[in-house]
Amino acid sequence: MKSRETADKRIVRVDLGNRSYDILIGSGLLQSAGGETLARLDCRKAAIITDTHVAPRYLDTLTESLQTDGIETFSLTLAAGEKTKSFENLHTAVDFILDARIERSDAVIALGGGVIGDLAGFAAAIVRRGVNFIQVPTSLLAQVDSSVGGKTGINTRQGKNLVGAFHQPHLVLADTDTLDTLTPREFAAGYAEVVKYGLIDQPDFFHWLEKNRKAVFSGGAERAEAIARSCAAKAAVVAADEHENGVRALLNLGHTFGHALERATSYDGARLVHGEGVAIGMVLAHEFSARMNLASPDDAKRVAAHLKDAGLPTTLGDIDGDLPPPDILMDAIGQDKKVKGGKLTFILTRGIGEAFIADDVPPSEVLAFLTEKQSQ
Amino acid sequence: MKSRETADKRIVRVDLGNRSYDILIGSGLLQSAGGETLARLDCRKAAIITDTHVAPRYLDTLTESLQTDGIETFSLTLAAGEKTKSFENLHTAVDFILDARIERSDAVIALGGGVIGDLAGFAAAIVRRGVNFIQVPTSLLAQVDSSVGGKTGINTRQGKNLVGAFHQPHLVLADTDTLDTLTPREFAAGYAEVVKYGLIDQPDFFHWLEKNRKAVFSGGAERAEAIARSCAAKAAVVAADEHENGVRALLNLGHTFGHALERATSYDGARLVHGEGVAIGMVLAHEFSARMNLASPDDAKRVAAHLKDAGLPTTLGDIDGDLPPPDILMDAIGQDKKVKGGKLTFILTRGIGEAFIADDVPPSEVLAFLTEKQSQ
Repeated sequence: MKSRETADKRIVRVDLGNRSYDILIGSGLLQSAGGETLARLDCRKAAIITDTHVAPRYLDTLTESLQTDGIETFSLTLAAGEKTKSFENLHTAVDFILDARIERSDAVIALGGGVIGDLAGFAAAIVRRGVNFIQVPTSLLAQVDSSVGGKTGINTRQGKNLVGAFHQPHLVLADTDTLDTLTPREFAAGYAEVVKYGLIDQPDFFHWLEKNRKAVFSGGAERAEAIARSCAAKAAVVAADEHENGVRALLNLGHTFGHALERATSYDGARLVHGEGVAIGMVLAHEFSARMNLASPDDAKRVAAHLKDAGLPTTLGDIDGDLPPPDILMDAIGQDKKVKGGKLTFILTRGIGEAFIADDVPPSEVLAFLTEKQSQ
Repeated sequence: MKSRETADKRIVRVDLGNRSYDILIGSGLLQSAGGETLARLDCRKAAIITDTHVAPRYLDTLTESLQTDGIETFSLTLAAGEKTKSFENLHTAVDFILDARIERSDAVIALGGGVIGDLAGFAAAIVRRGVNFIQVPTSLLAQVDSSVGGKTGINTRQGKNLVGAFHQPHLVLADTDTLDTLTPREFAAGYAEVVKYGLIDQPDFFHWLEKNRKAVFSGGAERAEAIARSCAAKAAVVAADEHENGVRALLNLGHTFGHALERATSYDGARLVHGEGVAIGMVLAHEFSARMNLASPDDAKRVAAHLKDAGLPTTLGDIDGDLPPPDILMDAIGQDKKVKGGKLTFILTRGIGEAFIADDVPPSEVLAFLTEKQSQ
């Protein structure tokens, strides 16, 4: 018998009534996946979906742990990258799960980053109108953001994440050992989402990050602490508003600008990855809030300085290559799904840790602001 | 201004908390679709999905009603028939809805029978993780069964309805005028599901049907009454168990045998349509219950007599062409999704209106029963 407890394992509970679930954060969780699963689910089979980047590193460890505990395993390895979140791969994943004869009481497991989690979660949501789902996120971004909260989906030619389902996982295993192999750029991109939780409504956490950034980046207790606090922050928002009818929109801080920049760079990860777009977007949201006399310009500077220290881009000029003119950027903002009835909904702020939902932002003000930023 | 009320409009409310909705049943509802929609939804656009069979008859009427009330309309006409419930058509429907820029507050409308309702409802469930959905069922089967309760889905090579979502409609408009163009065989197939509600737990309704069958078939007040009582019966079960964790399984009365027969006839509608499979399945369920000494054989005879009078097949011998041997039929039963952990779950009965869920039926008894029935 392997030990199923690790000294530094942290547990965050997502409180959603009879769909509540645990997020486990710590070292060695891949090795205890079988036990953690059986402690929560009466699961005979598991269909693991992963990608070509993650499979060589972690698939054997996960499979061995499940099999040791008597769970029959199946695996599907898809190409790594954002393009994998397609209708075609959804079909492939659904066929794989059905061919493995996974029943509702069995489990689909996502082993990988946000792309695999979103795709596998969506497939789990629609096979038999919902089978058990376990997230094993292996990137910082996935551990602190996409694996928590039940949003699943794919991309289509009309845009990102426009097709999907709300399907809560039954367990999230965030093995911090998997972060050791991330590149500094990948880690920093995930860190942008960590900072976001501080900026939304936890100024103390932002201050803590300002003091502990280096320790978080170098691993150990501070890193696990930052992940656990991020998960707890997201869990609280999700519990308050599972289906994004209200406060959950706060999680989009930095994302309206960020998505527009991702679109403007044709989702070319060499130029800009999601977390980097969010970093620039958060700075722009603070600057725009200052411009609207809602917040102090000093806060925007402080946010930019912290993100810059973390190795993240913070201005439009930090993006390699040319950007389209402001009116095209505005069009990209208009195509974002957070537009409602023609009005622009933005997450703005009154200062660090004081974000709020503004659903009446005049497009003309945003255009003027972007024109100003691009000419700097 | 058109009148939005018709003298004989009946309303059945499906009680699901903040997702409750109305089923309207009556004449002329296609003509008042716009008003009924705006009375419930702040809807600017509607994406109508229909098929080649239904579009020529009713699409213009529906479109005109919506446009008269200021709703912008888009339409997609798919091939008629069960094969339309495919992954490929799901993709087509999703693209159509996104290209029409339908927002969550707009609506997807299914105009057609069960196939269109299941497909369009599934597409509505996954676009933007759920947009408003309106059912306009034009077959009796769809009006009394598939349009109520929120089950949506498609077929895959592994089986029927194995992929889908629970997505409740926001309104169901069952225009009884559309039933006038059904063939007698189509009407009878839908009637099997009407009878089912009596057999599950409403013996009074079954007795009422025995007395009023001819009037129900010829249209008028009794027909609308039978539809309304069926919808109310289904609504009550759905309200008690939306996601089929318990009593909702009672709605599968006749369906385990029925699905196996549909599979055994390769889903060839010329030989057997769904409602006919259910009719034979209900008789078999009553006969098997009698064989297990749970119910009186007289009840099985009474059920068979009523269905036969309605023009429905009631025995294996009523199916054109050869059926596979009993062991192959058993295999088809084993592949039904209502198998859990290897044990057979059947809906059995203690008599008319006294159906119950039996989750420990010995496969050997079913095999012996089928062998007996096939040799008769």
